[in-house]
Amino acid sequence: MHKPSNRLNFSGGPGALPETVLQQVQQAIAAVPEVGLSILGISHRSDWFAAVVQELEDNIRTLLGLNKEYHVLFLQGGATQQFSMIPMTLLRGKKTPAEYLHTGYWSGKALAEAKREGPIRVLWSGESENFSRLPSDAELDYSPDAPYLHYISNETVEGLQFQRMLGRDDVPRVCDMSSDFLSRPCAADRYAMIYAHAQKNIGPAGVTVVLLRDEILKDAPDDMPGFLNYHSHIKAHSIYNTPPVFSIYVVLLVTRWLLNEVGGLNNMAALNTQKAELLYRTLDQSDNFYRGHAAVADRSQMNVSFNLPSKELEQRFLQESSAAGFSGLAGHRSIGGMRASLYNGLTLSAVKELAGFMAEFKKANG
Amino acid sequence: MHKPSNRLNFSGGPGALPETVLQQVQQAIAAVPEVGLSILGISHRSDWFAAVVQELEDNIRTLLGLNKEYHVLFLQGGATQQFSMIPMTLLRGKKTPAEYLHTGYWSGKALAEAKREGPIRVLWSGESENFSRLPSDAELDYSPDAPYLHYISNETVEGLQFQRMLGRDDVPRVCDMSSDFLSRPCAADRYAMIYAHAQKNIGPAGVTVVLLRDEILKDAPDDMPGFLNYHSHIKAHSIYNTPPVFSIYVVLLVTRWLLNEVGGLNNMAALNTQKAELLYRTLDQSDNFYRGHAAVADRSQMNVSFNLPSKELEQRFLQESSAAGFSGLAGHRSIGGMRASLYNGLTLSAVKELAGFMAEFKKANG
Repeated sequence: MHKPSNRLNFSGGPGALPETVLQQVQQAIAAVPEVGLSILGISHRSDWFAAVVQELEDNIRTLLGLNKEYHVLFLQGGATQQFSMIPMTLLRGKKTPAEYLHTGYWSGKALAEAKREGPIRVLWSGESENFSRLPSDAELDYSPDAPYLHYISNETVEGLQFQRMLGRDDVPRVCDMSSDFLSRPCAADRYAMIYAHAQKNIGPAGVTVVLLRDEILKDAPDDMPGFLNYHSHIKAHSIYNTPPVFSIYVVLLVTRWLLNEVGGLNNMAALNTQKAELLYRTLDQSDNFYRGHAAVADRSQMNVSFNLPSKELEQRFLQESSAAGFSGLAGHRSIGGMRASLYNGLTLSAVKELAGFMAEFKKANG
Repeated sequence: MHKPSNRLNFSGGPGALPETVLQQVQQAIAAVPEVGLSILGISHRSDWFAAVVQELEDNIRTLLGLNKEYHVLFLQGGATQQFSMIPMTLLRGKKTPAEYLHTGYWSGKALAEAKREGPIRVLWSGESENFSRLPSDAELDYSPDAPYLHYISNETVEGLQFQRMLGRDDVPRVCDMSSDFLSRPCAADRYAMIYAHAQKNIGPAGVTVVLLRDEILKDAPDDMPGFLNYHSHIKAHSIYNTPPVFSIYVVLLVTRWLLNEVGGLNNMAALNTQKAELLYRTLDQSDNFYRGHAAVADRSQMNVSFNLPSKELEQRFLQESSAAGFSGLAGHRSIGGMRASLYNGLTLSAVKELAGFMAEFKKANG
């Protein structure tokens, strides 16, 4: 029986981080090299930390090719806080509805919070089809009058990912990229706002990246609590109140890794595609032993959700994979089954090992 | 010239953590011993993490002698988020004003946010006296009709600390203990609510502990965004959305240290008193070379704010102390001067070393 290893951690998040990043983090717990103090004891008001935030902003701009019209913020509260802050800011007092797609578990959470703040229209819902596919363009009848369009680029639970950009250029696009941010290029400058919590591809839980164009805030209410006001955070360069210093630092290390070791998002995307193709091939060549949840055209490169022929086999799969050192393979509690998450930090060799295990398991149990 | 050391980190926060905790955190970055995975890659939905939250709740209850009528929550957003959540929950729609004390920089922030949500009465303000002292009981005319009383037990910037409990037993006490939580016993069961971010005495930035009695939520509005609703967090045992797993784990390690190595809050308080007395003695015996900001009766055991006879000497003090390996001694940007923060993680020997340095510096420059 193997012990679990970080290398074989297929968790849906918080998930695997690159080994070289973990080594640097371990060092930083004792002392950040250029400071000499533990990362846990450095003031967020220090010059060093201001430089960390600046470098991280710059790295994200570089990775995405974003210009200075975009603010780059590091906030607390996860995507969940954004589910509320966005309609509080962009929808309160509006007459026409914002448009939301209901493509899975998480977009359902987003639209439930939006409804509290103003009118919304559900442009399309996959609920009756058990969130097994995404809509085609023909199914999406966008209105030019919507204050904004909101969608989730990758549904983490169901393993559905848009392989194209949605919406109209004359309506602000707001996209939750929590589970595929910085996993591939994304034409970020065509979005009015992108947000992503860190704990999938870019760091630990506790910090959320928000990119937004200054112009979408022009009608924003200015009477909100400071911590819910994007203006407060912009003005303070993400240090409005004590930020999650540690989490932000780890995200910086991951962006350095993306830039210097991976060589940018095209390379990252190529590697992520290889990983996903390998695993989906394992599903497709299993004679329906491994059954993918998502329609083939909408398969996620990040989360491969699948079932086995019976609950008993699923249970045995979890036990034996765990004994073999794999972890995080249980599906989300809302749908059960299996899920292998292939975030940036997970290596191709780990996916090869999983594919090998799956082939053996099928041979023994198929 | 010495390098800075964690041992001599007098930062106002994030601040020094116990050396044994840092060692365990370093190990956990590679692998949490009982799990085998990096703390940064463990799912917040795992049984292990549910047990972490439970043990941490229990440890805090044990340390404070709190019964099960109190919920113990771990939230994001810092004290700043509580500045808003509290009046959103307890003040909206109320006719009579909540009572706030304005005793320093941070209580000013709290009352500014409360004003947005409902009527408040400033019971006492130290602003005209430059926040150099705290009020006596005779200066506080509490109303029995207030929805609650809010105050800050320790003003981090000015170094003022209440050495008694305020308020009436028939009005809910709400206390921000961000900078002295778990530094001493506090008769917690006489408060309706206590909150404290972690980054002073109990952990890294990114998590805030909230203790509250169930009964104060009986009239709470139930139409708030989920992440601002205490009920959501109570129901979900602090895992309403992805919590800051790492920060919560570090706080658990600090509470274990408090229980098992320090031996509880009486011992912690005795040690903190020794540290503070030593440093204040250095001030008092300096022939007015080191000038404490706070009135003697209201001196904080956590933050010793002081000035030197001139800005030039203060600059030199910072430079030479830094060269000697000390760090974090610059005062808060709002008032300048010096500040030595003596949180739980800082040792008596570190304070002795600082007192020695201060005596030498005075001899050379006095």
